Amino acid sequence: MTTQEELHQWYELAQQLRIDSIRATTIAGSGHPTSSMSAADLMAVLLTKYFHYDFEHPENPNNDRLIFSKGHAAPLLYSMYKAAGVINDEELRSLRKLGSRLEGHPTPILPWVDVATGSLGQGLPIAVGLALAGKYLDQLPYHVWVLLGDSETAEGSVWEAFDHAAHYTLDNLIAIIDVNRLGQRGQTELGWNTQAYSQRAKAFGWQAIEIDGHDFSQIDHAMSTAIAVNDRPTVIIARTKKGQGVASLEDLGGWHGKALKPEQEQQAIAELGGERQIIIQVHQPETQEPVPTGKAQPLQLPSYEKGAKVATRRAYGDALKALGNAQPDVVALDAEVSNSTYVEDFAEAFPERYFEMYIAEQQMIAAAVGLQVRKYKPFASTFAAFLTRAYDFIRMAAVSRANIKLMGSHAGVSIGQDGASQMGLEDLAAFRAVWSSTVLYPSDANQTAKLVAQMSDRQGIVYLRTTREATPVIYGAEEEFSIGGSKVIRSSDQDQATIIGAGITLHEALKAYEQLKNDGITVRIIDAYSVKPIDVSTLHQAAQDTEGNLVVVEDHWLEGGLGAAVLDAFAGVGEMPTYEGPQLQLIKLAVSEMPTSGTPEELLHAAKIDADAIIAAVRSLVKHPLSTKF
Amino acid sequence: MTTQEELHQWYELAQQLRIDSIRATTIAGSGHPTSSMSAADLMAVLLTKYFHYDFEHPENPNNDRLIFSKGHAAPLLYSMYKAAGVINDEELRSLRKLGSRLEGHPTPILPWVDVATGSLGQGLPIAVGLALAGKYLDQLPYHVWVLLGDSETAEGSVWEAFDHAAHYTLDNLIAIIDVNRLGQRGQTELGWNTQAYSQRAKAFGWQAIEIDGHDFSQIDHAMSTAIAVNDRPTVIIARTKKGQGVASLEDLGGWHGKALKPEQEQQAIAELGGERQIIIQVHQPETQEPVPTGKAQPLQLPSYEKGAKVATRRAYGDALKALGNAQPDVVALDAEVSNSTYVEDFAEAFPERYFEMYIAEQQMIAAAVGLQVRKYKPFASTFAAFLTRAYDFIRMAAVSRANIKLMGSHAGVSIGQDGASQMGLEDLAAFRAVWSSTVLYPSDANQTAKLVAQMSDRQGIVYLRTTREATPVIYGAEEEFSIGGSKVIRSSDQDQATIIGAGITLHEALKAYEQLKNDGITVRIIDAYSVKPIDVSTLHQAAQDTEGNLVVVEDHWLEGGLGAAVLDAFAGVGEMPTYEGPQLQLIKLAVSEMPTSGTPEELLHAAKIDADAIIAAVRSLVKHPLSTKF
Repeated sequence: MTTQEELHQWYELAQQLRIDSIRATTIAGSGHPTSSMSAADLMAVLLTKYFHYDFEHPENPNNDRLIFSKGHAAPLLYSMYKAAGVINDEELRSLRKLGSRLEGHPTPILPWVDVATGSLGQGLPIAVGLALAGKYLDQLPYHVWVLLGDSETAEGSVWEAFDHAAHYTLDNLIAIIDVNRLGQRGQTELGWNTQAYSQRAKAFGWQAIEIDGHDFSQIDHAMSTAIAVNDRPTVIIARTKKGQGVASLEDLGGWHGKALKPEQEQQAIAELGGERQIIIQVHQPETQEPVPTGKAQPLQLPSYEKGAKVATRRAYGDALKALGNAQPDVVALDAEVSNSTYVEDFAEAFPERYFEMYIAEQQMIAAAVGLQVRKYKPFASTFAAFLTRAYDFIRMAAVSRANIKLMGSHAGVSIGQDGASQMGLEDLAAFRAVWSSTVLYPSDANQTAKLVAQMSDRQGIVYLRTTREATPVIYGAEEEFSIGGSKVIRSSDQDQATIIGAGITLHEALKAYEQLKNDGITVRIIDAYSVKPIDVSTLHQAAQDTEGNLVVVEDHWLEGGLGAAVLDAFAGVGEMPTYEGPQLQLIKLAVSEMPTSGTPEELLHAAKIDADAIIAAVRSLVKHPLSTKF
Repeated sequence: MTTQEELHQWYELAQQLRIDSIRATTIAGSGHPTSSMSAADLMAVLLTKYFHYDFEHPENPNNDRLIFSKGHAAPLLYSMYKAAGVINDEELRSLRKLGSRLEGHPTPILPWVDVATGSLGQGLPIAVGLALAGKYLDQLPYHVWVLLGDSETAEGSVWEAFDHAAHYTLDNLIAIIDVNRLGQRGQTELGWNTQAYSQRAKAFGWQAIEIDGHDFSQIDHAMSTAIAVNDRPTVIIARTKKGQGVASLEDLGGWHGKALKPEQEQQAIAELGGERQIIIQVHQPETQEPVPTGKAQPLQLPSYEKGAKVATRRAYGDALKALGNAQPDVVALDAEVSNSTYVEDFAEAFPERYFEMYIAEQQMIAAAVGLQVRKYKPFASTFAAFLTRAYDFIRMAAVSRANIKLMGSHAGVSIGQDGASQMGLEDLAAFRAVWSSTVLYPSDANQTAKLVAQMSDRQGIVYLRTTREATPVIYGAEEEFSIGGSKVIRSSDQDQATIIGAGITLHEALKAYEQLKNDGITVRIIDAYSVKPIDVSTLHQAAQDTEGNLVVVEDHWLEGGLGAAVLDAFAGVGEMPTYEGPQLQLIKLAVSEMPTSGTPEELLHAAKIDADAIIAAVRSLVKHPLSTKF
């Protein structure tokens, strides 16, 4: 039962949260006061009664977690931090200003924010990852709370989360939907039909509780019911009013994302009963230790015989399993293709650290982001083509400063008969254009294993591209490969051109090498397995040594991939380029027509990225008059 | 009531479809016979009794539509085409071979395939677009049938489709889920729990019918019930067995995506009763005319005064409305931000041609793909950042050879206070790496209007990037801008360097120009509004004229955007580059650190893409000894 004292405290706190949301946005001149006000009552009850959090130690594993999936309600979140005594009023008033930790949408620049939000529909799937960590890895009793807007339930990713949370019986996960009825441009699809939300959630296996989101007793009861359940996640569907508490804003259109003018602000504050300076003692969490996920063994990477034919995706699976043995914090996720990515070997060896994400790539990436909040090292794998499904989640993972490792298999036309829908042909471009990213593309099995081992502790978004087809092992198992490096695998002082390849095309380059040599043309070959960062100095040296004649060959669209990375090595960023050798004559060989079905060999040939095409390109360079002018 | 004759016919046809699916994949040596066999009974009934289609005229607007969302069941689809008499056995046996129209997954190379599938979870949302066209634009009684796999219902996009189809009461849409229980690597999440599917579908507002997918009477009854309903879409949830009809395959793991060996094939064919040569007379469709969506008026593009400050997104909204008046086949979609993209003006003027997609970007793109099947010209708009949510749909739209027009607003750090989550910073890279794409990035309002007018009839994926902030109008309303062109807006015969910008950075380049001029340095300025295709010859000329000194400045990550497009202009594709001028000295100015909140000016400065950064870059080039060596 809710006490009178609680009711009074919550009312006062909620009004303060509203007022502070208004004040901060008015000073900023922009932001979302009304979307903050609708959820203020909900958050007042949560913060004072149900939320357990050690603000001095955000890394405390026992902390409850709170994700503002409706990131535009950031002013409310920041007002809660002020009420918790961890930011002062001066900082609150820095909202949205350059240099402030209080950005327009929450980011982990603030120590209590685990993940960035602002792209709607991401908070709940990320929370699924955190709840998986809490229930299955940490095995700690903390709760993961998520505040959602009503509009964002139109995102399919939200339903991926509903689906997976129920599948994994995440009773530690509590979603609160702030059904304030009004989206950015008018009424939401479902308006105040909280029953519709409830029916959908129940059909997906959740406990659903419909309440008046401005009735403290109902909020209290709903939250106590939510934490009591032990066989399913709970969603609290709270009917609220946008701008609640101020008559001139309440439930009115035209107030989305709009700050009040100073005179409107003063009137609103007065109507809300004036400024308060309430500080809440937030409950401390438990003091349990997380359950260890295993004992570290020495790393024993797989090794392969030179000359054997092994697919790099196969080597990835082997290496991931080895890594799992060596690093108990490595966890794996896959989108129902683990027999193609070979993540099934990890899953079999470490079932407690493997999460099947079914065919839900957005949820897979989001879960990885959630897991890394708790310092696990998630490796998420599927076909390279299907990682495009989660591109917004990868983009946002970068804003979250997340450390996640991704593997995309079945890259390029060389997959063969399955056709274009299954071919990853834009992944290098997409991943290169992600902040904090590392992009790796190994050409053989031993190299793959060595790179996978380095992925684990690499910061940021680390992407490994692998090949479906078995390709010859060309490196010894003792060879080392540093991220940012490359391998010059053919070289002489008579080289007339340099061929730069990676993955499957490196093997075509090697075939071309032999034929060109027979014709009296010697070329250098660079294995550019580290696409980002790329090995600038080795490329410069090669251009210097081979009269500026470069051929870059890749199983990828023409734009944004390896060819672009090589060109970038010859440009300056913000200042003069450092290359001073002969004029660059660079030929790109990449996929430019829509591929069809066919054998891998046929498709490499049709795309003009096979040995024949490389030979022709080298010949055109070597014969060209410019190439001899130096 | 189902007749005995029907039962016999369907049994025979279904066995033929199974046998042909097996035969085609065995010859191919790969493919998905068992996933075809589970749905053969369903498709036999559909093809003979309910499907109305003029195979000689696939463009007939009255045709029913059939989308194989489970694209890997392509052998079944092709076997249906054989049964319909439109491909012969020889062509069937060309499955998955180079040059065959029968690819591993269906593509519109075949005239009866409207859209490519193979990335799961896309067929139903695309069907929503087709059903919108049928119900609200064509106003014709055709039905849109979609065959889904059970695994793919894990994709959130499927629930976006469930949501939108019910919202738009698409009673002309019938989904059939082939619940064969087995995914690629084992049991699906829901197995044979057809009730769970049914509850979810009903909660989203659909009629749901659970049947035994191998009981012809039940199939017949379900389909007749589906076409009779007139207030909601229907889903038929068919419990089936993968590999149905062959004991050694039926409901067994390990048979996903695996062709039978010749001896297994022979045994299976015998078990299925031997080869048949049934040809079905598919019902002809109605012969109604589509309802006209309006009468074409002369195009009256908006125009803006030079010097006025107008956001390019504002000009987009104005131009789209003008286009709507001139071209009745233009339709618009938006993801609940139409007051930010200014698509609200179109929506207000042409409510019958506007579809609110709420915050469901995947569904928005899919609907656009569906609408263009019926030759409408869809313009889909949201923030550039949020188009990343639909990247897989855009990738697949290219495989579908779709003609769709996309607008991404709020590009880059210049949006200001909202922070990184709302900033489109990877869109140029992502869109450049889409096959068939055109990428436009106007710098002023008049230019925007002229480009929007050209988007409408441009083939492929056409993307327009716009800016949140109001920027000065620098072109007269009479100026023309061709796709693939550029504008040299400052030029002299003393130019020492060239600055290449687009969108917001062009205005920074103009500021830099003035300051540099005061210091005695004259520069050329190129407005590269057509990022793909880029104006190669103008760039070559500029490099030739300005000693190879280029500065490219863009409000985008360093990788894959305008800078990459300019570098590509100096590389060769498959053959020698054509540029023969002085050594290129190219400096890229782009965003490299994660942006925060701040004013647009502060953020442009912090990202080093403002006039100050441009000036510094030009100085470093002009001062550099190499730059004077020619």
